[in-house]
Amino acid sequence: MPELRRDPIIGRWVIIATERAKRPDQFAVGKEEERMASGEKCPFCEGNEKMTPAEICAARRPEAKPNTPGWEIRVIPSISPLLVVEGELDRRGRGMYDLMNARGAHEIVIETPLHVKENQIRPEQLAKTFNVYLDRLQDLEQDPRIRYVLIFKNYGNVAGGGHIIHSRSQLIGTPVTPKRVKEELAGTKKYFEYKERCIYCDMIKQERDLGKRVIAENGSFIAINPFASRFPFETWLLPRQHACDFHKTRRELIPDLANLSWEVFGRLSRLLGDFPYNIIFHTAPFRNYRKKGYWETIEQDYHWHIEIMPMLTRVAGFEWGSGFYINPMPPEDACGGLKEVKI
Amino acid sequence: MPELRRDPIIGRWVIIATERAKRPDQFAVGKEEERMASGEKCPFCEGNEKMTPAEICAARRPEAKPNTPGWEIRVIPSISPLLVVEGELDRRGRGMYDLMNARGAHEIVIETPLHVKENQIRPEQLAKTFNVYLDRLQDLEQDPRIRYVLIFKNYGNVAGGGHIIHSRSQLIGTPVTPKRVKEELAGTKKYFEYKERCIYCDMIKQERDLGKRVIAENGSFIAINPFASRFPFETWLLPRQHACDFHKTRRELIPDLANLSWEVFGRLSRLLGDFPYNIIFHTAPFRNYRKKGYWETIEQDYHWHIEIMPMLTRVAGFEWGSGFYINPMPPEDACGGLKEVKI
Repeated sequence: MPELRRDPIIGRWVIIATERAKRPDQFAVGKEEERMASGEKCPFCEGNEKMTPAEICAARRPEAKPNTPGWEIRVIPSISPLLVVEGELDRRGRGMYDLMNARGAHEIVIETPLHVKENQIRPEQLAKTFNVYLDRLQDLEQDPRIRYVLIFKNYGNVAGGGHIIHSRSQLIGTPVTPKRVKEELAGTKKYFEYKERCIYCDMIKQERDLGKRVIAENGSFIAINPFASRFPFETWLLPRQHACDFHKTRRELIPDLANLSWEVFGRLSRLLGDFPYNIIFHTAPFRNYRKKGYWETIEQDYHWHIEIMPMLTRVAGFEWGSGFYINPMPPEDACGGLKEVKI
Repeated sequence: MPELRRDPIIGRWVIIATERAKRPDQFAVGKEEERMASGEKCPFCEGNEKMTPAEICAARRPEAKPNTPGWEIRVIPSISPLLVVEGELDRRGRGMYDLMNARGAHEIVIETPLHVKENQIRPEQLAKTFNVYLDRLQDLEQDPRIRYVLIFKNYGNVAGGGHIIHSRSQLIGTPVTPKRVKEELAGTKKYFEYKERCIYCDMIKQERDLGKRVIAENGSFIAINPFASRFPFETWLLPRQHACDFHKTRRELIPDLANLSWEVFGRLSRLLGDFPYNIIFHTAPFRNYRKKGYWETIEQDYHWHIEIMPMLTRVAGFEWGSGFYINPMPPEDACGGLKEVKI
């Protein structure tokens, strides 16, 4: 059973992922290369459903049976889950240390039956993926043991995406509210207390007035390169109307989100080629478990958004030790470059 | 002039490193490969002093002139500095955003005149490097504009060390106390207020009692794999006697630190081969700029130490979004493996 251990000094959590464990001498450099041999089957392709655990849900032709071909989007449990659904959380101490069982959910959303990358997916298919996220979050919210669901995507080997290109994303439901999420909630709360306005709404206004960091926008969403971008070409997508929960997004807005994502991805790919990246949804925690503090004002303080982080630079000792980031690409120049390319 | 920009939501700082800037289209994947061609000269080797900026200081034979051969350790300004010594800090606002000039210090410590890696350096030479760190920190502390000096090392391309193996480390002096440092200070202060003991001293005691995460120790220092290790084989070196400032370490303790570092590195290299890693010194900020809060009790709360982070796994979307880490190697097993190898 994997364990969740808490660092006693700054309170960060570590998953000791025993399911992925190897012997100490198997970590030696050069022994780790996992590459998809040519001819090897992709477990995410239509027709290879038997290679994965049984699906949780799928968008498929009405006559097609579960775990057979005929689907457009498919959600499966992770093959090597970081958090597992079964068992009790069992929060406990071990001397001065704190730990619990790594209980939660870990699902994979296969975004297309075809063996293609995200930038080859049409907006209509992207919209289906966003709708499946909404379905899954609305379902997971019913489980009072899950406090947060992180939606993310790793693409490319240096971004942790492995060697299989087939477009997919992950959902991880955690039994505690993650530290990074709490930091954002605390920051937005502080701003609201001072200004009586949402900080992201203010940012959208300032960026629209200025224009030089706005890549594109439509009726419901806007794409910017943020002022303090950590990475070259870091891009945020935000709903133009204030809303703290992604999973409560009205379905009629999803096509706008899909169209803007498609445009932004097109521009990034045209400029950067087959670039590695991480995408992370930032949304408010579930309020099925309520407590005082930022929980009370979360609806006014927080504003959900998506962060796209191209991984073209390396995080190294200075970043690890200081929490500072080094970005050799001013976001104004990144935005200029992205707007210029033809898609 | 590079800029320090502050993220308005969670307060992290980003260095917009204009000195390292490229045109937007030069970030495209495949254009970035920087590899040291065979036959190319290493700027850190003895005899190539002309390839670097003029040295700040050096340990050299008394008869040898600055910037000529005959040295054992050499400290130079960074060739592409992230923070620059000249100019004013000029903290200012731009609409809702905050920024300042990237003022500070950025130095490279060349740890040996020979073209070798850290694991090929003898303990006597390592001790000289530690002594040079003490010299530089004691000098930089005199500059009231510098609040913190981070000592770190990047080795191997995936850890940000580039393709030149020549053993070297970096010192970056920052005009603000870094967020990561503040988090540790806040955590140790909270523990002291509750327990009236230093959290690291308690940890050393518990680890020595238990034994299964202690790699080695000598009269003055101890090496452990921490309970909540973020990375496989993460290793911390701590002084056994409570002390908050690395730069006030008594010089007679340095040989013990060098010997333990040498042993730990020998064990890691024997087990992991030519592995990429980051090393980060965690020490208290300078108190040349005093304010209330953790500054008042820092001497009792904080305990300096060194963190060695082998980069054998990749940080990806889940870590970025949650602040959780995933470690497939329980630290007890890592420690067992490290103790078993012959050095």
